Amino acid sequence: MKHLQHFFDPKAVAIIGASATYGKPGYMIVENLIKWGYKGRIYPVNPYSGEILGLKVYENLKSIPEDVELVASLAPAKDTVKLIRDASEKGVRGIVIVSGGFSEAGGAGWSIEKEVVDTAYKNGIRIIGPNAIGPINTSNDFVLSFYPVESLKKGRVAFIAQSGQFVAPVMEFIFSFLNVGISKSFDLGNKCDIDDADVLQYLENDPDTKVVALHCEGIKEGRRFLKACKSISRKKPLIVFKTGRTPIGAKAAISHSGAISGDAFIAGAALKQAGAIRANGLDEFLDLVKTFDYLPFPKGKNVGIVTYSGGVGVIAADACEKCGLAVAKYSDRTISKIKSVLPKKATVSNPLDFFAVAPPKDIDSFYQTAILALGEDMNIDSIALCMMLPEKGIWTPDPYIILNAAKNISKPVVVWLVGYWESMRDIWKVLEDGGIPVYLSPERAIKAISALYRYSSRDFSID
Amino acid sequence: MKHLQHFFDPKAVAIIGASATYGKPGYMIVENLIKWGYKGRIYPVNPYSGEILGLKVYENLKSIPEDVELVASLAPAKDTVKLIRDASEKGVRGIVIVSGGFSEAGGAGWSIEKEVVDTAYKNGIRIIGPNAIGPINTSNDFVLSFYPVESLKKGRVAFIAQSGQFVAPVMEFIFSFLNVGISKSFDLGNKCDIDDADVLQYLENDPDTKVVALHCEGIKEGRRFLKACKSISRKKPLIVFKTGRTPIGAKAAISHSGAISGDAFIAGAALKQAGAIRANGLDEFLDLVKTFDYLPFPKGKNVGIVTYSGGVGVIAADACEKCGLAVAKYSDRTISKIKSVLPKKATVSNPLDFFAVAPPKDIDSFYQTAILALGEDMNIDSIALCMMLPEKGIWTPDPYIILNAAKNISKPVVVWLVGYWESMRDIWKVLEDGGIPVYLSPERAIKAISALYRYSSRDFSID
Repeated sequence: MKHLQHFFDPKAVAIIGASATYGKPGYMIVENLIKWGYKGRIYPVNPYSGEILGLKVYENLKSIPEDVELVASLAPAKDTVKLIRDASEKGVRGIVIVSGGFSEAGGAGWSIEKEVVDTAYKNGIRIIGPNAIGPINTSNDFVLSFYPVESLKKGRVAFIAQSGQFVAPVMEFIFSFLNVGISKSFDLGNKCDIDDADVLQYLENDPDTKVVALHCEGIKEGRRFLKACKSISRKKPLIVFKTGRTPIGAKAAISHSGAISGDAFIAGAALKQAGAIRANGLDEFLDLVKTFDYLPFPKGKNVGIVTYSGGVGVIAADACEKCGLAVAKYSDRTISKIKSVLPKKATVSNPLDFFAVAPPKDIDSFYQTAILALGEDMNIDSIALCMMLPEKGIWTPDPYIILNAAKNISKPVVVWLVGYWESMRDIWKVLEDGGIPVYLSPERAIKAISALYRYSSRDFSID
Repeated sequence: MKHLQHFFDPKAVAIIGASATYGKPGYMIVENLIKWGYKGRIYPVNPYSGEILGLKVYENLKSIPEDVELVASLAPAKDTVKLIRDASEKGVRGIVIVSGGFSEAGGAGWSIEKEVVDTAYKNGIRIIGPNAIGPINTSNDFVLSFYPVESLKKGRVAFIAQSGQFVAPVMEFIFSFLNVGISKSFDLGNKCDIDDADVLQYLENDPDTKVVALHCEGIKEGRRFLKACKSISRKKPLIVFKTGRTPIGAKAAISHSGAISGDAFIAGAALKQAGAIRANGLDEFLDLVKTFDYLPFPKGKNVGIVTYSGGVGVIAADACEKCGLAVAKYSDRTISKIKSVLPKKATVSNPLDFFAVAPPKDIDSFYQTAILALGEDMNIDSIALCMMLPEKGIWTPDPYIILNAAKNISKPVVVWLVGYWESMRDIWKVLEDGGIPVYLSPERAIKAISALYRYSSRDFSID
């Protein structure tokens, strides 16, 4: 899959249809390339000469004096076949077709797209798109996207989508809310050439990618796709968010990306057999991304639940049972360790409710003792902490004490916080910066553990 | 149900076990009563004389020179029977038993609780609890809770729970994140006397309450409960979050609130028949609370979807089909109105993807035109808006324009935002302050409409 390298680490890139008008895609791409410090050469191309952001504008590909490895095209659909021929003469290896007006537009768009594919194939040029926003590679700060990218967070998740206006804002949300970083991001658009299977093959051996998150509307070659899923998911978790799953949704997908949604191939059972983790909805997709990025795998299904609230303990216990985890008994040693910091009469069980058994003022030492004890308890494979955050800040364990207690534990530790939002976000950030993911509900925190357990035990039936 | 009035609007309240030590429940209750401006008389009671927060401390109930209507008790379980006798002599009408050590503790706790109930019954005193945090009434600023309550938001949702450490921090979350206000909040604890059915009967005629949100672990008298559900849900939406639903969860519930979870009575079918809306999990519970508080009911199941992204349109369309809504055709009039602001070649369909059909710079007028047109379109019963928020703030419709366009529309309008978190929260607040609820995923925004539609069409099968 070496050809994909042209799309992520090109020596020189030309932007066909570059614009001097702020806000237009042809301007934003040039701005992003410069702003993010792309180290290769940038050639804006349009019929009007001049400068864009200090760069000389070329009339066409031919007039560029040096080699061009990658082209981003904002040219009208009807001009694309000619562009590919010109690109071939110039020695271009890949084209990102940003423009629409191809199969997603129906009618003549279909035949134009077909001619584009044939021409590219004959000339040895690979295509991403059409109707694609452009790739991002955080390992070399290459941002070819036309989205107004203001922040990037380098990380280990590759995020592949079939919608540019989905992948770009969702990626901002992933950085700013989920506290997760990205290795590479692509929008495959209409997938006239390079498709999901190609990308999965490429990412399988990408050392920067630990987790693969795939949003897709349509899969054309189902068997090939499933084969690629099977291969990559042996090495790293593949999370699939398939949309266009209902008849109405599938209809919308055709007019969006020309996608035939092909559910027969990637329905639950086949996908599961191929080792992929299917997300039901956006919330779950994002939770899974965060979970697999942050956490180690549990050795078994026994969860230790530590709360400040009996009511929350009941909810967490329900969630464990619903998703196939167990609320195991703590070992005698754990019980005696925890009892040592509690009043004499306190009983210690799982879920452990500190509020019921002791005055809340010593909450730091309670949580610390419980985390350390559960970390060493062979009966417990993962730890779910539930914490409350009154606006006043009392009754809340110090997040640094939690991080410190958890730092040598190789079991997954998840947190659910609830209370006054601003206080929550402060503690949330401290915990996630320290490597402990926070979830918005106890059920989601528990489901995260379940997803890890199922993947690591090769039971892929995430429901 | 006049007796519940003693718990929400007492002329005088005594706190048995009041404390001068900051952070202890017996201190926090007194502080909350004073801080929130309770207009009745407050009598701290403990064996040591002195002052608490400037209030004279009384040795016992008898030594209080005036009448006491309500008592909050932090006395040990074993002293509670005597307390009730003393309270009866003093003319007390209700007791909130905050202390634990009753049925939830098992063993002797069961028999103590039984004696407490018998004694109270004989003496005409009603009980909330034991093991309850204390009620809040925002209509008269009466806060008897021992939680460190720092903010209150007056509103129309009554929030009843069976866990004090659940209701209190979740209520802070409801104020600070959901932007929803509360009429009354109660934690019923072990429900030895006053139970869910009593409270539902009371709230049925409470003019301050528009929506009832009920978290419960156990229901003792199922038939009576269902009857109360049936009665209230004819007048206002009742949302039920039943926990302790699994065997492990039910076991945890017994040790938390002594609750026998009685699923036979309040399983899905019976609850549905009684008109209640069942929430599966905390996220859904909170979404439902917000939805029924904010929105009017749709007249039918036809949703108009307006997005900036074809990919998001597909997700929203999937969500409609999954929850029984329809993605209806726009009327010819709507289509021509929207076309009038778009480039000539643009096609207008539902979902409507503005990004695909027009340059994003005119996004304000696109959204405005679409909202106004859909507001008048007889084919459309509700409107789902999806918006993206790049950190830079371009390509995002002005929220005030959205509010202004939506203000005369009597159909539900919901929003899903995605992008850079800090920008999202700013626009989020503007929209919600203006009455348009924002959801964290397109599926949840659509599910909100579905819940409204099902309730209003008396189809209570929320799944």
